[in-house]
Amino acid sequence: MKSPNQSKFTISKEFLNMQTDNTPAKFQHTRRHFLQWAGAGAAASLTAAGSSFAQAAAAKDQPSEGRAAGPARLQLAVASYTFRDFPLEQVLAMTARLDIKHICLKSMHLPLDATPQQIVEAVAKVKKAGIDLYGGGVIAMKKQADVSQAFDYAKAAGMRVIVGSPAHEMLPLVNEKVQQYDIRVAIHNHGPGDKVFPTPESVYEKVKDLDQRIGLCIDIGHTLRIGADPVRSAQQYADRLLDVHIKDVSAASPAGKTVEIGRGVIDIPGFLRTLIQINYRGIVSFEHEKDAKDPLAGLAESVGYVRGVLAVI
Amino acid sequence: MKSPNQSKFTISKEFLNMQTDNTPAKFQHTRRHFLQWAGAGAAASLTAAGSSFAQAAAAKDQPSEGRAAGPARLQLAVASYTFRDFPLEQVLAMTARLDIKHICLKSMHLPLDATPQQIVEAVAKVKKAGIDLYGGGVIAMKKQADVSQAFDYAKAAGMRVIVGSPAHEMLPLVNEKVQQYDIRVAIHNHGPGDKVFPTPESVYEKVKDLDQRIGLCIDIGHTLRIGADPVRSAQQYADRLLDVHIKDVSAASPAGKTVEIGRGVIDIPGFLRTLIQINYRGIVSFEHEKDAKDPLAGLAESVGYVRGVLAVI
Repeated sequence: MKSPNQSKFTISKEFLNMQTDNTPAKFQHTRRHFLQWAGAGAAASLTAAGSSFAQAAAAKDQPSEGRAAGPARLQLAVASYTFRDFPLEQVLAMTARLDIKHICLKSMHLPLDATPQQIVEAVAKVKKAGIDLYGGGVIAMKKQADVSQAFDYAKAAGMRVIVGSPAHEMLPLVNEKVQQYDIRVAIHNHGPGDKVFPTPESVYEKVKDLDQRIGLCIDIGHTLRIGADPVRSAQQYADRLLDVHIKDVSAASPAGKTVEIGRGVIDIPGFLRTLIQINYRGIVSFEHEKDAKDPLAGLAESVGYVRGVLAVI
Repeated sequence: MKSPNQSKFTISKEFLNMQTDNTPAKFQHTRRHFLQWAGAGAAASLTAAGSSFAQAAAAKDQPSEGRAAGPARLQLAVASYTFRDFPLEQVLAMTARLDIKHICLKSMHLPLDATPQQIVEAVAKVKKAGIDLYGGGVIAMKKQADVSQAFDYAKAAGMRVIVGSPAHEMLPLVNEKVQQYDIRVAIHNHGPGDKVFPTPESVYEKVKDLDQRIGLCIDIGHTLRIGADPVRSAQQYADRLLDVHIKDVSAASPAGKTVEIGRGVIDIPGFLRTLIQINYRGIVSFEHEKDAKDPLAGLAESVGYVRGVLAVI
């Protein structure tokens, strides 16, 4: 067994002493987990698919947090579709109340045809709330104008990721735009009924030969609803996993509905363990589709559940 | 290593096949945990203080759940002081929304001087909501009339536990009443500023020679605020642990305030592990004191956190 300082990873002083928004007790746990993991020979726990890209691509998400190249505590976000019946101000207040630091805005909170001035104003509101506007979506891209609009929108808002649903024939243009803008595109699988990208596999097959900044946003609810396995999907497509929609569903079938995380049928501890094992460095976004008129309690329970699992695994 | 069926515990068919309100995935985990635990020689993991009483005393809490004498999944409840600014109907609706099946009512939701008819009506509301009215409190008992009232009240409401704060000089009368009514009394430690029962130790010292149905409701927040250790307290006083107030606090000092579980300084996984190790068979009640006017989101996050931890440990 290698000692931590023989590991191929550099453990920075900043990591060992890092300030987090976490409590001392949990921080110690995270740190202990990291040291155990590093000491055990980190590379051995990675899947065959590897994770060098996910690690590199996500590194710029964490410029100020002093993390070395090791398994970071997962970063949690809200996918604002959760709050689709609320205005941006309330979305931000509820997100901040949950102590969530990242958000992916859906178009009802920042319209795709917003003017540059409107985008500046919305971005300022998010920043004032202490929240990182890391992405936008899910954004449909059926025609060329949609693709152009999405990239201009994301660039104006400073988003690092477009969670998207492009038509297959738009992929060559998306590939060009990714290279031109250096903005990642995480394609969202929508499960039963989606003829374009129903499964993580269907996304991977279409993007594997494109720029590495085009990858997957695995929606674990839709994944299970169509009979695919979120854990295996994350393992198999680790090298292109750029975003995650986390939720729980009431059944592993098309009839499954979003429920509070922990009350459904998804193996959430197993999935979170997998994200750590593949060294996932992207963001994990809660998309709580239940109770659109009053989603806060269900989202809060879901956030608590994930934090509880992460405190132990 | 003993196989499960060589264990001193009887594993009932009902337990192995039991129906729970949990998901299949988590149930499998609980079952696996039980089998590992039983197989490893359960008695070895109990503390010196033992837990035979807690196990026996709490057995009647679980008449219909088919559990054998092994570590059960902990039963969660709401201490209705959390919802002190809301009427009973809303308290029950919010509790049910969190899928919490047990409640301990504080006097603002069922007045101590309620008439028998008022008690019958309140009990019917709780039952109709699908919730088990397991206890009442915290109930102060400064004089004889308070003690008599508390036991008559608890009996009329069918409560199995009085979470109480009796004056020291009332303990002989409480002891008589416990034997007369067969209702347990869990004395609550209130931390800094409480001259009667500040710590779990102060409760234990006063009750250890009384009827075994008089014991502790360890409030882990007040315990940490006064500089005592919730984990050690649960271990040391396991034989008299009858109820738990679970919460998190912002600091291990008198200035500590209740925060959402997981955001504070209490080692919640360690505490829950301890409850399982001591074979605690009572109920774990959430008392979320923050945001009295709007406590649901914080309580939901706390409930989720505990469920997340329990899914993994």
